[in-house]
Amino acid sequence: MKAGEIAEFVGGTVSGNGEVEIVSFADLKTAKQGDITFLERPENFSGTNASCVIVPNGFDTAQFPAAITVKQPKLAFALIAQKLRVRETFSGIHETAVIAADSDVRASYIGASVSVAGDTQIGESTEVHDGTRIGRNVTIGTGTVIHPNCVIYDNVTIGNDCVIHAGTIIGADGFGYVRDAEGVYHQFPQVGTVVIEDNVEIGANSCIDRGALGETRIGKGTKIDNLVQVGHNVNIGKHCVIAAQTGISGSVVIEDGCVIGGQVGFGDHVTVQSGAVIGSQAGILPGKIVRPGVWWGTPIQPLDEYKRQNAHIKSLERMKAELKEIKRKLD
Amino acid sequence: MKAGEIAEFVGGTVSGNGEVEIVSFADLKTAKQGDITFLERPENFSGTNASCVIVPNGFDTAQFPAAITVKQPKLAFALIAQKLRVRETFSGIHETAVIAADSDVRASYIGASVSVAGDTQIGESTEVHDGTRIGRNVTIGTGTVIHPNCVIYDNVTIGNDCVIHAGTIIGADGFGYVRDAEGVYHQFPQVGTVVIEDNVEIGANSCIDRGALGETRIGKGTKIDNLVQVGHNVNIGKHCVIAAQTGISGSVVIEDGCVIGGQVGFGDHVTVQSGAVIGSQAGILPGKIVRPGVWWGTPIQPLDEYKRQNAHIKSLERMKAELKEIKRKLD
Amino acid sequence: MKAGEIAEFVGGTVSGNGEVEIVSFADLKTAKQGDITFLERPENFSGTNASCVIVPNGFDTAQFPAAITVKQPKLAFALIAQKLRVRETFSGIHETAVIAADSDVRASYIGASVSVAGDTQIGESTEVHDGTRIGRNVTIGTGTVIHPNCVIYDNVTIGNDCVIHAGTIIGADGFGYVRDAEGVYHQFPQVGTVVIEDNVEIGANSCIDRGALGETRIGKGTKIDNLVQVGHNVNIGKHCVIAAQTGISGSVVIEDGCVIGGQVGFGDHVTVQSGAVIGSQAGILPGKIVRPGVWWGTPIQPLDEYKRQNAHIKSLERMKAELKEIKRKLD
Repeated sequence: MKAGEIAEFVGGTVSGNGEVEIVSFADLKTAKQGDITFLERPENFSGTNASCVIVPNGFDTAQFPAAITVKQPKLAFALIAQKLRVRETFSGIHETAVIAADSDVRASYIGASVSVAGDTQIGESTEVHDGTRIGRNVTIGTGTVIHPNCVIYDNVTIGNDCVIHAGTIIGADGFGYVRDAEGVYHQFPQVGTVVIEDNVEIGANSCIDRGALGETRIGKGTKIDNLVQVGHNVNIGKHCVIAAQTGISGSVVIEDGCVIGGQVGFGDHVTVQSGAVIGSQAGILPGKIVRPGVWWGTPIQPLDEYKRQNAHIKSLERMKAELKEIKRKLD
Repeated sequence: MKAGEIAEFVGGTVSGNGEVEIVSFADLKTAKQGDITFLERPENFSGTNASCVIVPNGFDTAQFPAAITVKQPKLAFALIAQKLRVRETFSGIHETAVIAADSDVRASYIGASVSVAGDTQIGESTEVHDGTRIGRNVTIGTGTVIHPNCVIYDNVTIGNDCVIHAGTIIGADGFGYVRDAEGVYHQFPQVGTVVIEDNVEIGANSCIDRGALGETRIGKGTKIDNLVQVGHNVNIGKHCVIAAQTGISGSVVIEDGCVIGGQVGFGDHVTVQSGAVIGSQAGILPGKIVRPGVWWGTPIQPLDEYKRQNAHIKSLERMKAELKEIKRKLD
Repeated sequence: MKAGEIAEFVGGTVSGNGEVEIVSFADLKTAKQGDITFLERPENFSGTNASCVIVPNGFDTAQFPAAITVKQPKLAFALIAQKLRVRETFSGIHETAVIAADSDVRASYIGASVSVAGDTQIGESTEVHDGTRIGRNVTIGTGTVIHPNCVIYDNVTIGNDCVIHAGTIIGADGFGYVRDAEGVYHQFPQVGTVVIEDNVEIGANSCIDRGALGETRIGKGTKIDNLVQVGHNVNIGKHCVIAAQTGISGSVVIEDGCVIGGQVGFGDHVTVQSGAVIGSQAGILPGKIVRPGVWWGTPIQPLDEYKRQNAHIKSLERMKAELKEIKRKLD
């Protein structure tokens, strides 16, 4: 693509030579001729060999062979990188795959040792990579990629254009037990389902449990990192991001557009309202309603309060000394 | 089953029409004719279409076609649900399974691409699902279900009627190294075993490491959630529950009947005495003995103390103001 | 081996009968005739049936049939145990393995259902166990063991003499997204690589993400426990140890010889300087530079400060009482 075409594609303004041919992308330091790159922190800029640089509004572009001015350079770079790098696609059904006769598999690719049980539907252009196991009565949409060694239990639904990374388990039993008078635990029925909506991406080795009696749902466009635990009957809205190793207990509701850090712990029946941002390692008590805003700590509190409280704790040494001095004066 | 038969099965008292035929179960809201359901929080009850409702002692049953009165409705519901829903069983040995000639496999089901190494015994009515790898000299009892893509290392013992969810790894090396004078780490021998007793259930993508020189043991009836780490030489008693993402360091002892929340961290050589309850995200210093009672925080303390301490911290702002006022007066 | 030969091997001094034949190793309690053991805490010693005991300098050896005196008994024991126990090696390429014709596989063992994609090189004496998936253009050195059901994505490099435990995923996409004006997340390109240097050991079900545009690197001799998350573009130095369930965000640098506890959380762009020790469950804010020393808490602080602060918090109740008393006196 020419720099001018890229500018048009990302909705930016080209300057310099719009005819420059761009073949790939890289970061500022490693970019070479033919590459496009972007400037995230203009104040730290110290040169690049890229043929074209995406810069924020107001940055001087005279020094570059070609430049594209946009409001969000990183976003524009992500969009053009997706376009420049055509992801390798896979096709064919491997001879070692085990596919039930009564399934409806239209996928473009079923890898080695994959198994697909009965009554399952897999849509067109979907790829199921080596060693992934797909249970009975599963529905998977079109254009979805499931990486190797995942396990999709029975009755799960996965939408279109999703990406599930390796080793992720969807639809295992939720963790629900009832204790009897002898202290023995009996499983509460875990017979519900999981619904993953379109454009969801889930990292590696994460776990999304099935609903106990109802469903666990991950909303459209939500992105989940590695090693995340999503308990039974959790309902996550659209366009949320959830970082690595966060654990979400049963029946939690996370509304649209929330941002959840890593290693956060949710008690059960928490509701996080749309637009809330929760800092890493925060802990949320069962039943809590988290309003929009930025939150941190265990138990979580608004970020400002948390910071003020930390400052108070830091001043405890001085407070103690003052108390001592006052007592001396009074005596 | 008829409502009257169910009442007898769960040890409750039927009221209304004991002849009502029950075919399935559901929660209060989604239950329909032919379903049984249960009432957990009578104060929130607002109607159901179920044919039979399990209610706690003292609840008015006149409004239901049939009702069963018991002490613990949720427990009764769990027990009858297990009975009403006959879990799908699997049988046969898949042609793609690789089973060593000198193993003794009586399992009812060995799935696709499973491998079983030599000197291994698998009992009757046990199911080993697709892609699970079972090492050498492993013993697995009867009636156990191992879900897909698990790995059971050499010399591990698993009892009867256990459930191991997908992706769980049992018997990997413990994390023990000794540093030499040059700062290079050498592995301490990790040649022990893992013993999983009967009726243990383990969630998805958890890890139970082998003992270094002795054994790691999970006691009868203990339930472990997803993404839990159990280190080398840990000894967990009977009828414990351990929630998701908790990490248990080497040589920890957890006695019978303990309840451990999610994301709890145990230092090594901790002992948790029978009946202790540890709140989520708590952190326990190495060597600590945790007595019966409810504990929380890092480092853990009795819940009451932890709450009082949190309240004190919350009052720091006011304390500071009081100190200032006192100093003003003294001046 | 004879006790005298072992003494020579570990650089210690033999006493008693140096001709005693040692065939195996065990801990103090379970050791029997023919075993070697070691004494870690001399103050707790209460007898052993071992034929030879490795003891620290200054310990009385007259009571043992044979003894070896060294500076670090545990280290000497680890070294001799590695020598006494020849690990079972595997050989052959299983007939169910799927190996691309244009790969260069010299490995001593490729297990059942393993898949190896094109342009991949696997060195001599390396073992790839059942169900592990190796992508395109991967390079794996010699003498490395990859346990079952791992996934190595495309373009990853793994060195010599590494051990990767079961279920670990190397090279999945990093977690990087850019939000557009409508709140929709677009993936930032995740097209970099992972480089694992020689002698690295990684536990079970861990995740090492690929670099976004550059590389993620794990330095020589570093040991990583189970369920650890290593984000994109992280650079971990040589001879570090990282305990279970720790999460390392993107672009973190951990220099040589650091010790990181379990369940630690790193914000992105943190730098941990060589020789730092970070306690379990600590949390480190993005961009923080952690100097050498021992650190704990969230946000982390030097261990001494953290302990002093905790002591201050414990004294809050008394401080409150003192304040009250002072106010009474002033009134």
